[in-house]
Amino acid sequence: MRGVVLHTPGDVRVEKRPDPMIIEPTDAIIRVTAACVCGSDLWPYRGVEKLEGPVPMGHEYVGVVEEVGSEVTTIKPGQFVVGSFWASDNTCEICRSGYQSACVHRVLMGTIGTQAEWARIPLADGTLVATPGMPDADLIPSLLAASDVLGTGWFGAVAAQAGPGKTVAVVGDGAVGLCAVLAAKQLGAERIIAMSRHAPRQELARQFGATDIVTERGDEGVARIKELTGGLGAHSVVEAVGTQESMTQAVRSTRPGGHMGFVGVSHDVSLPGDELFFSLVHLHGGPAPVREYLPELIELIANREIDPGKVFDLTLPLAQAAEGYRAMDERRAIKVLLTP
Amino acid sequence: MRGVVLHTPGDVRVEKRPDPMIIEPTDAIIRVTAACVCGSDLWPYRGVEKLEGPVPMGHEYVGVVEEVGSEVTTIKPGQFVVGSFWASDNTCEICRSGYQSACVHRVLMGTIGTQAEWARIPLADGTLVATPGMPDADLIPSLLAASDVLGTGWFGAVAAQAGPGKTVAVVGDGAVGLCAVLAAKQLGAERIIAMSRHAPRQELARQFGATDIVTERGDEGVARIKELTGGLGAHSVVEAVGTQESMTQAVRSTRPGGHMGFVGVSHDVSLPGDELFFSLVHLHGGPAPVREYLPELIELIANREIDPGKVFDLTLPLAQAAEGYRAMDERRAIKVLLTP
Repeated sequence: MRGVVLHTPGDVRVEKRPDPMIIEPTDAIIRVTAACVCGSDLWPYRGVEKLEGPVPMGHEYVGVVEEVGSEVTTIKPGQFVVGSFWASDNTCEICRSGYQSACVHRVLMGTIGTQAEWARIPLADGTLVATPGMPDADLIPSLLAASDVLGTGWFGAVAAQAGPGKTVAVVGDGAVGLCAVLAAKQLGAERIIAMSRHAPRQELARQFGATDIVTERGDEGVARIKELTGGLGAHSVVEAVGTQESMTQAVRSTRPGGHMGFVGVSHDVSLPGDELFFSLVHLHGGPAPVREYLPELIELIANREIDPGKVFDLTLPLAQAAEGYRAMDERRAIKVLLTP
Repeated sequence: MRGVVLHTPGDVRVEKRPDPMIIEPTDAIIRVTAACVCGSDLWPYRGVEKLEGPVPMGHEYVGVVEEVGSEVTTIKPGQFVVGSFWASDNTCEICRSGYQSACVHRVLMGTIGTQAEWARIPLADGTLVATPGMPDADLIPSLLAASDVLGTGWFGAVAAQAGPGKTVAVVGDGAVGLCAVLAAKQLGAERIIAMSRHAPRQELARQFGATDIVTERGDEGVARIKELTGGLGAHSVVEAVGTQESMTQAVRSTRPGGHMGFVGVSHDVSLPGDELFFSLVHLHGGPAPVREYLPELIELIANREIDPGKVFDLTLPLAQAAEGYRAMDERRAIKVLLTP
């Protein structure tokens, strides 16, 4: 089959890879209907994360089940399924507490590479959620978004305790940040402040439910959030970038006793203990337990109550994956959908 | 009046200081019945925190109201009162959300110095809580503990979401850590692991409700907590030291999705963003909003349901404050009560 491989930073190729096969009796093989490029794929693409030789890429996927292992009982060939970037058994104590991304048997899909024609999904019963019937074609982008960016933004908003009566600020206007805006809206937040200086992203943030846009960053961004919140800071702040600047901005934008959810993959970030201590902020974040939210998100999408697929502003055939990476790297695209 | 002044690290003197007077109409003057030496007083005593000239010491206190300012309406002369180390109005939006230690009008009592015969208490109506009548003498130590170490340990346990069905680990066997054990027990925790290598403190931890004692520290301490919790880590961890080692130990002892409450005043601590991210731990801590818990704690003490005063294992007259500091510095005493 054909799949995306990153050889060295910037060198994305679509090349022949071995067809996936059932290895464990709990595996499934899916024919990938749509995959995409993630903001986190840009870290190795840009050389910020070290690469140990060529690696298959991609961890977001929706598709149709082709084959299942002998121990798979709930997932069946022919089903349209959505999964998360962590394969999880969904039965261990950590999964049952809602943290499938820390499942004791978890497998990172990034090591498998879903930007490809087919993919092997470990722990299929725990990982995959079937849609109610075969979805209409126009729902595919939203279902694909649920596989990562929507689930991640959702977790950020939940971790930040977005809800009725709350003012929520979102740091980061990538697909995850925009989905956090959508999540905050769905969770009932009263006011949603999107921090963005890019007109098309501001526009999408507004469509997703943002009530205010703040273009300032760093200390000026913090000052602006304080101005908008009676000097106190936001009740809830979602951090969706992962840099020192964005984490610092997020902590300082949260009021004492408020909640900060951080879902940007952390890179070279160091948090001073005394600042955290005196901030009195609740911090929670990490790799989102997307699996926990998938049934609810799929239902909202199937009922056309939310349309997170709007984050995909560029669709390319898998063969043009390199152009997809370039477009995201240069911020010409918010998120790129790839069709095998 | 006479009060404790720290001149240079290690140089504690009891000397004549100006009698306190009503400055703001919201002030009260109390005659201090008992004060004490705090673990946090040891930071400047040991020279870890910089001293800018001689400073009055002490921020924990119980006493009898002598005089109130013209705008004080609920607190009256003759009442026995307990207050926290932050004076707070208890009416601002942050106070009402339960974070009086970040009150928009807060005043740090440490700048006033309660290791003295009298003390001025700012924002008396918001800060002080009167006991039901004049307490029996044997309740004084417990009421004094409520002023800081019990309230702080309680906040740590609340921040760590100690409660029914939970395994709680407490890092730090000082008075705050021991009070966190007591709090976890009161909050209904199923299993409470105290980390301590000092026999008298282990014994007090057991009296307060600890079910297990772990003597190992650092990575070995983490490994022991994992062993005791099926490899997963504790649901709730209270950090009550404030060093890099103790914070790291606390984060690593908490299971994914678990809660860590940190109440040790943070000194030279730096938390790596990626470790926090991949830990999936909830973090919350800081200067405890003791005022929030005082009414409940006073009731528990008045009803003799808890006895946190046991943390005081040395009582000295105010004149011997220097010996009290030495005893705590050398860990000969858990906590020293001073009687003016």
